[in-house]
Amino acid sequence: MMYVKGNHVHKGKASVEGGGNGASRLLDTSVVFIGAGNLATNLAKAMHAKGYRIRQVYSRTEASARTLAQAVGAAYTNDLAAVVNDAGLYISALKDDVLQELIPQMVNGREKALWVHTAGSLPMRVWYGAAERYGVLYPLQTFSKQREVDFAEIPIFIEARREADLRFLHELAGSLSHAVYEADSETRKALHLSAVFACNFTNHLYALAEALLKRYGLPFKVLLPLIDETARKVHELAPHEAQTGPAVRGDERVMELHEEMLADDERLGLFYSILSASIYDDAHPEPLADDAENEVGDDFNEKDINCGLPVIDIEDL
Amino acid sequence: MMYVKGNHVHKGKASVEGGGNGASRLLDTSVVFIGAGNLATNLAKAMHAKGYRIRQVYSRTEASARTLAQAVGAAYTNDLAAVVNDAGLYISALKDDVLQELIPQMVNGREKALWVHTAGSLPMRVWYGAAERYGVLYPLQTFSKQREVDFAEIPIFIEARREADLRFLHELAGSLSHAVYEADSETRKALHLSAVFACNFTNHLYALAEALLKRYGLPFKVLLPLIDETARKVHELAPHEAQTGPAVRGDERVMELHEEMLADDERLGLFYSILSASIYDDAHPEPLADDAENEVGDDFNEKDINCGLPVIDIEDL
Repeated sequence: MMYVKGNHVHKGKASVEGGGNGASRLLDTSVVFIGAGNLATNLAKAMHAKGYRIRQVYSRTEASARTLAQAVGAAYTNDLAAVVNDAGLYISALKDDVLQELIPQMVNGREKALWVHTAGSLPMRVWYGAAERYGVLYPLQTFSKQREVDFAEIPIFIEARREADLRFLHELAGSLSHAVYEADSETRKALHLSAVFACNFTNHLYALAEALLKRYGLPFKVLLPLIDETARKVHELAPHEAQTGPAVRGDERVMELHEEMLADDERLGLFYSILSASIYDDAHPEPLADDAENEVGDDFNEKDINCGLPVIDIEDL
Repeated sequence: MMYVKGNHVHKGKASVEGGGNGASRLLDTSVVFIGAGNLATNLAKAMHAKGYRIRQVYSRTEASARTLAQAVGAAYTNDLAAVVNDAGLYISALKDDVLQELIPQMVNGREKALWVHTAGSLPMRVWYGAAERYGVLYPLQTFSKQREVDFAEIPIFIEARREADLRFLHELAGSLSHAVYEADSETRKALHLSAVFACNFTNHLYALAEALLKRYGLPFKVLLPLIDETARKVHELAPHEAQTGPAVRGDERVMELHEEMLADDERLGLFYSILSASIYDDAHPEPLADDAENEVGDDFNEKDINCGLPVIDIEDL
């Protein structure tokens, strides 16, 4: 059984259940990573840097398992049956569907350990019936193997079936980050969905801008100060207050010009019109009446019926 | 006539055409701002901080003119006829359509000065027929009155009708930023359009994420480390390489779950499905065949016919 502060301490055993002070006992926990992808790589490296003992890394792809294992001083395997049975903590960072499929095989023979997954949209209950002690440790961040991120700032959302395991995860997460929160599976799902908008979709807009610039022979890097400021700004202003650009101003001349420029690109043209309409609508919730901007308001309200899609084009899309 | 380094120097005159070294003569140029909005406020403050003499600020709104004028030690007016006639440089940062409408009245009696606008999507030729010396100074950044930005990093794109004025704008921009480029009106238009995607639309995605979190009683700030990292990442990786999330992985389970969560929000549901389809399509340009992922590929290729919109829903939008 794994050491948990002030609870179930098995004195006299070394490493996993350890003696000594809380910090060293926490660090004595032997950890196995199931998965060696972007998240596993970053989490394992952060834990290794804090002094955790990563005992073994499993990945279906031997090269991935080896690369991560070597970086964190662990053994590795690509055979699930060869995963050690006596580790204290198993951290599974597999793709959601793979994880669900492998749970019975993974946990079998290792039921006494604490099992956690790291996924935003997978409920904790996926472990139910297989593991006895289980939970979730979800760092809300975008990870790439090429970049090491500073875990200290990353919000980590934890959940566990048992109170003692929750306390353990709290300590573990707290040793990596100063932003640790308990969150149930429903909350975590909402966080993940919001993160898809704020990160994955945002990055895709960067990619679309990159493609646009390329068409004109311009380098993406000219946008970096703008991208940085756009991100910095929402530390001080709420996003809806920070909105700038032709759509929020209702600058129809510029929007029409931009739509003409995108006339030969169906996808970008569609994104341009629905995102602009959405920005305008958020900034002008009521239809304007009896003033000079009436025309603009009407125009957008009409578009709003189909979320900003020009009616005439829908069947041609 | 305004001083331009090494050209048309009228010695003996003070201030505007000045004597002395290049830097002090550049700074002796008397500058009038036409407009006191976000961009004018930030540019005027940056110039003031560098020692430029801002002589007067015009805005239709007296309070705006006064606020900016006081911040940069200038006079102010809300009467275009009261704008001084003998400044060296007039910087117009009005909304595009207002600018175009006011040009004849603005320039009248001030034809000898250098006139520049600061707009991304307005060609330089809007000045043609009114001013004799004109150009564009376009800082590629998002500005708010509430935040002062560091001009040193901001790419500034300049254009001028006359070679001597171009050199002057190069010096002026170069005194504010180390990233100064000459760009014609077509190029500037492309930059502006890309900026709308990378900044305005990105900020709107932040706002949509903010609204989503609010629905679940969660604070927007939990996303800030993720937003920062998403922006930082594209300094090192091209955006299409930096893409993460369920769409690029083709994780249908998560995408279906998210779409269910958005079932009661037509707008977010639409954005989710078209942006996910677009990410997937970019990452999987060829239809996959004869392997396990065939099904995913087909699914998305089918959606692609209408840019990811579910066919059945279009008429109900």
